[in-house]
Amino acid sequence: MIYLDNASTTKPNIEAEKAVIETFSDFGNPSSLHGLGLRAEKIITASKETIARVLGVMPQNIYFTSGGTEANNTAILGYCMANKKRGTHVITTKIEHPSVLEPFHILEKNGFSVTYLDVNENGEISLDDLENALTEDTIFVSVMAVNNETGTIQPFDKLKTVMKKKSPKAVLHVDGVQGFLKVDIKPKAMGIDLLSISGHKIGGIKGAGALYIGDNVHINPLIAGGGQQKNMRSGTENVAGIAAFGAAALHYVPVNKNIREELKTKIEENIDNIKINGTQNNSGYVLNVSFLGIKSEILLHSLEAKGIYVSTGSACSSNKPMPSHVLSAMGCNKKEIEGAIRFSFSNEEFDIDYVVNTLKDEVSNIRKYVR
Amino acid sequence: MIYLDNASTTKPNIEAEKAVIETFSDFGNPSSLHGLGLRAEKIITASKETIARVLGVMPQNIYFTSGGTEANNTAILGYCMANKKRGTHVITTKIEHPSVLEPFHILEKNGFSVTYLDVNENGEISLDDLENALTEDTIFVSVMAVNNETGTIQPFDKLKTVMKKKSPKAVLHVDGVQGFLKVDIKPKAMGIDLLSISGHKIGGIKGAGALYIGDNVHINPLIAGGGQQKNMRSGTENVAGIAAFGAAALHYVPVNKNIREELKTKIEENIDNIKINGTQNNSGYVLNVSFLGIKSEILLHSLEAKGIYVSTGSACSSNKPMPSHVLSAMGCNKKEIEGAIRFSFSNEEFDIDYVVNTLKDEVSNIRKYVR
Repeated sequence: MIYLDNASTTKPNIEAEKAVIETFSDFGNPSSLHGLGLRAEKIITASKETIARVLGVMPQNIYFTSGGTEANNTAILGYCMANKKRGTHVITTKIEHPSVLEPFHILEKNGFSVTYLDVNENGEISLDDLENALTEDTIFVSVMAVNNETGTIQPFDKLKTVMKKKSPKAVLHVDGVQGFLKVDIKPKAMGIDLLSISGHKIGGIKGAGALYIGDNVHINPLIAGGGQQKNMRSGTENVAGIAAFGAAALHYVPVNKNIREELKTKIEENIDNIKINGTQNNSGYVLNVSFLGIKSEILLHSLEAKGIYVSTGSACSSNKPMPSHVLSAMGCNKKEIEGAIRFSFSNEEFDIDYVVNTLKDEVSNIRKYVR
Repeated sequence: MIYLDNASTTKPNIEAEKAVIETFSDFGNPSSLHGLGLRAEKIITASKETIARVLGVMPQNIYFTSGGTEANNTAILGYCMANKKRGTHVITTKIEHPSVLEPFHILEKNGFSVTYLDVNENGEISLDDLENALTEDTIFVSVMAVNNETGTIQPFDKLKTVMKKKSPKAVLHVDGVQGFLKVDIKPKAMGIDLLSISGHKIGGIKGAGALYIGDNVHINPLIAGGGQQKNMRSGTENVAGIAAFGAAALHYVPVNKNIREELKTKIEENIDNIKINGTQNNSGYVLNVSFLGIKSEILLHSLEAKGIYVSTGSACSSNKPMPSHVLSAMGCNKKEIEGAIRFSFSNEEFDIDYVVNTLKDEVSNIRKYVR
């Protein structure tokens, strides 16, 4: 099996698996007063410290969630609904993940006006557009670090400087789910007030994410109850998932970024009528290619039959056959969107030539039938 | 180790552990189109079917959450905020879990009026009180199946009949976290519209719960995004936690209910100045005893030193040293509340005499020092 769908989810790494198995005996409730509870709490603290260290922030600013989606919802709805009196204009982009876009749609229904920034053909927003969109009523800006469908890096490190000029009080949220450990994200140095990350994109298991909340950023919790995590996120913590998240972050091995370049070059050399989507400023973890004249789902299944696992776009919207809003925003035409395949990498080596040769054969076969 | 804190959390059972480990290789994203995604989706479907079968409902009415707290928040906030136009009076009880009470406090801040039903000295609400509280403006009633601190069973199976008389359109939510698989809960037969349950109270792992949502019950999702679970709960599913939840439910072995009775009798016979809290209609899974003249936290730690793990109340509020709102509502006095210890059982056998003798010694020692 050659698994090239790591932007959907990663295979847990061995240290994350071990960390999960350890929680089978360290099974206490972190809120329990006895030693078993304390041991569970220590697991959470250790993961928090690892993640905080990677981000260069204090552990007390890290809050665990059930994943990136909950982190994004908490950041956007939790901040904006709690701070509506400060202003009702908010800004995001057209290429965000649905777990960002949907909360913004909810804000629209609750009296907010939302500016959705355009992107260029590479999938990048422009800082000028941001500057033009900012008003004194703007309280919140949300831009992803790395796009999940194309791997394009947004200028997330430069946003706050622009914001400070025109909307000094506006808060910056970055969806770092596809960027965490893949590009350098330093919330404090970059003026990021809220940062969402997820464990299962870096070798953890599904069900655990985190939200960095900067000092002096006041948000309403999304989930209320027993008061865990300083009342910010009630509910017994997912100790196994959090343990895996910490272990995965601690033992993360970055991808060799030449892999994307090599695969891209060989595809360009061997297969005609293709288009690379998102060529510049790429994280190196995603290669999005449109095979023109092909329905990507057919190619996905024919590659699967040869042991190669890819995606047609983002996993969480790929169950619904909808044209990619990301590629649309980049100006791709219908054929380009229909034929788009996402290859996303881990540090596990694979036979690039086998992938390219298989692709060449399958694309050629499918094109024959379509004609 | 004698672990008698199963109402806080249970040790995962061996089948749940196996189910988790299987997800290390079946690691796909359930939303992915390829076979790895499909296999993950099948794990979720299987768990859903198991849980639905136990409850006598259809699998499509089961939605997975990150736990009981999220399920309670979704049920209460999701229903009431979406149905505010139908009425703004809601009813719950004084002895609910914080993950129910806190959402009701949020409703109060959002224009709802809340009636908190009293309980008698056994910790039970009265159906007459419910009937008297219901008005034509009442849209929602939330009552737990089994109390987490005392094990007292509420008349959750009779509530809907009373509601139908005076508020035929009101929806019934039952927090079944401490009742699932321990008392008979059949939502359809009992008129329960929304039921919250949790995996880690029955031998699963922390981080996975579920909400049963009856047909024609319209609620707003709490977490929006990629549209997973028919848009009701977006976010990549916690496959490992859900797998463990299903396996735990499938292989659940009920507790021998004589254990509570035997422990209770032997404590009564051997230790003076005690009070049993919640004597009638008990699930058999919890024994709450006040050792008068003792601070329960001191007894908890001295028992721990002898290998016996208990709780001073509910785990998720025990990190905050607050008097139990449950025992308060039952009319317990300060001394009774301060000295309350919760023993909660699993099907693992333990040496009752060792527990009682240790208790006798430790209680006697502590009382000596206090005098």
